[in-house]
Amino acid sequence: MRIALLGGTGDIGQGLALRWARDSNHDVIIGSRDPDRAREKAEEYERELASVGREVKVTGFANEMAADRADVVVLAVPAYHISDTVEAVADRLEETVLVTPAVGMSRDEDGFHYNPPPHGSVAALAAEAAPEGVPVIGAFHNLAAGRLANLEADIDWDTPVFGDDEDAKETVTALADEIAGLRPLDAGGLANAGEVESLTPLLINLASENDGLHDLGVKFW
Amino acid sequence: MRIALLGGTGDIGQGLALRWARDSNHDVIIGSRDPDRAREKAEEYERELASVGREVKVTGFANEMAADRADVVVLAVPAYHISDTVEAVADRLEETVLVTPAVGMSRDEDGFHYNPPPHGSVAALAAEAAPEGVPVIGAFHNLAAGRLANLEADIDWDTPVFGDDEDAKETVTALADEIAGLRPLDAGGLANAGEVESLTPLLINLASENDGLHDLGVKFW
Repeated sequence: MRIALLGGTGDIGQGLALRWARDSNHDVIIGSRDPDRAREKAEEYERELASVGREVKVTGFANEMAADRADVVVLAVPAYHISDTVEAVADRLEETVLVTPAVGMSRDEDGFHYNPPPHGSVAALAAEAAPEGVPVIGAFHNLAAGRLANLEADIDWDTPVFGDDEDAKETVTALADEIAGLRPLDAGGLANAGEVESLTPLLINLASENDGLHDLGVKFW
Repeated sequence: MRIALLGGTGDIGQGLALRWARDSNHDVIIGSRDPDRAREKAEEYERELASVGREVKVTGFANEMAADRADVVVLAVPAYHISDTVEAVADRLEETVLVTPAVGMSRDEDGFHYNPPPHGSVAALAAEAAPEGVPVIGAFHNLAAGRLANLEADIDWDTPVFGDDEDAKETVTALADEIAGLRPLDAGGLANAGEVESLTPLLINLASENDGLHDLGVKFW
């Protein structure tokens, strides 16, 4: 399977790219608005993977080209770039699954707060921007990007996966399951997005308020 | 210390009462609108504690009397009874810490959803209802009541604790820490209540959507 990470030069994109390239046999494609930057980062990831003994090809393209080549497109961009990123690649999405890990947050002196767009959630915003028939699945919101991108660090985390298209949810669940130490959990449909997305500011607040806790993920039991 | 559980005849109240009575040396007081019911349940808890080798006194009173006797008052009632419960005991609260574990939720065919009162959170609602100078601390939202109330079941869970009064937060944190298998974490001030409260519908959705998962709690790492 071919996985494109749009915004794959950023922190969560980097973590997912490195882990999939190391732990699975899927093709990992880095997308960026700037194709030179995408190629540079793809080469950087290749070198990092080689340094842990994994010789694998990672490619880099402009977002449109990356999406064009992919079966699964991860929108690894900030919440406020979801709409324009989806619009930019809309005519490249055919039988493609869109994945959104983004969260809308605000920050004040107390900490981070869940601040969804008027659509109710970032996932609902992505679903509205997506062409008809292109399923949107939410996943990977609650992974600490720093630890994810550090291949020396083991993880043992859950990630809730939600969406209304059962086949697409199954595809993303299987991909998540291939990352070592990651357990995908079914969080239901798109209507349940808010409860998943609001985990992210909670994790940031807990890491900031408690000595010794940082790069937090979550495990349900 | 004397801990009163208003609504201590209900599920989360029962779990906290049993665990504190078993794991700490604090006085546990069961409150209910119906004092007979409070006394009955207190005796039932005593018998259950005796059956696991813990001979300890648990008392039961009407909510007003329970609050009057307590240093810490846990509002173990549904979100829609927070206001009237606080009002009923308001003149009994002196140097008392109020604790709110309640969450506002709605339910539809997709699952449970976080549905806070117009105040922004149940904790903010409790703070508005509380007499001036009585601190409100949020904690114990995300404990599965069934497993908590089953003394045969070990737990290994975190509970985020939040509030604006640092002394009161410290008191509640120390009490939470005395329950075996429970790790309190600082989630910051009252403004961070929504992110903590919305964990509860997520836990319910995950338990309902995933075979083999039930009575879910959470661990952050």
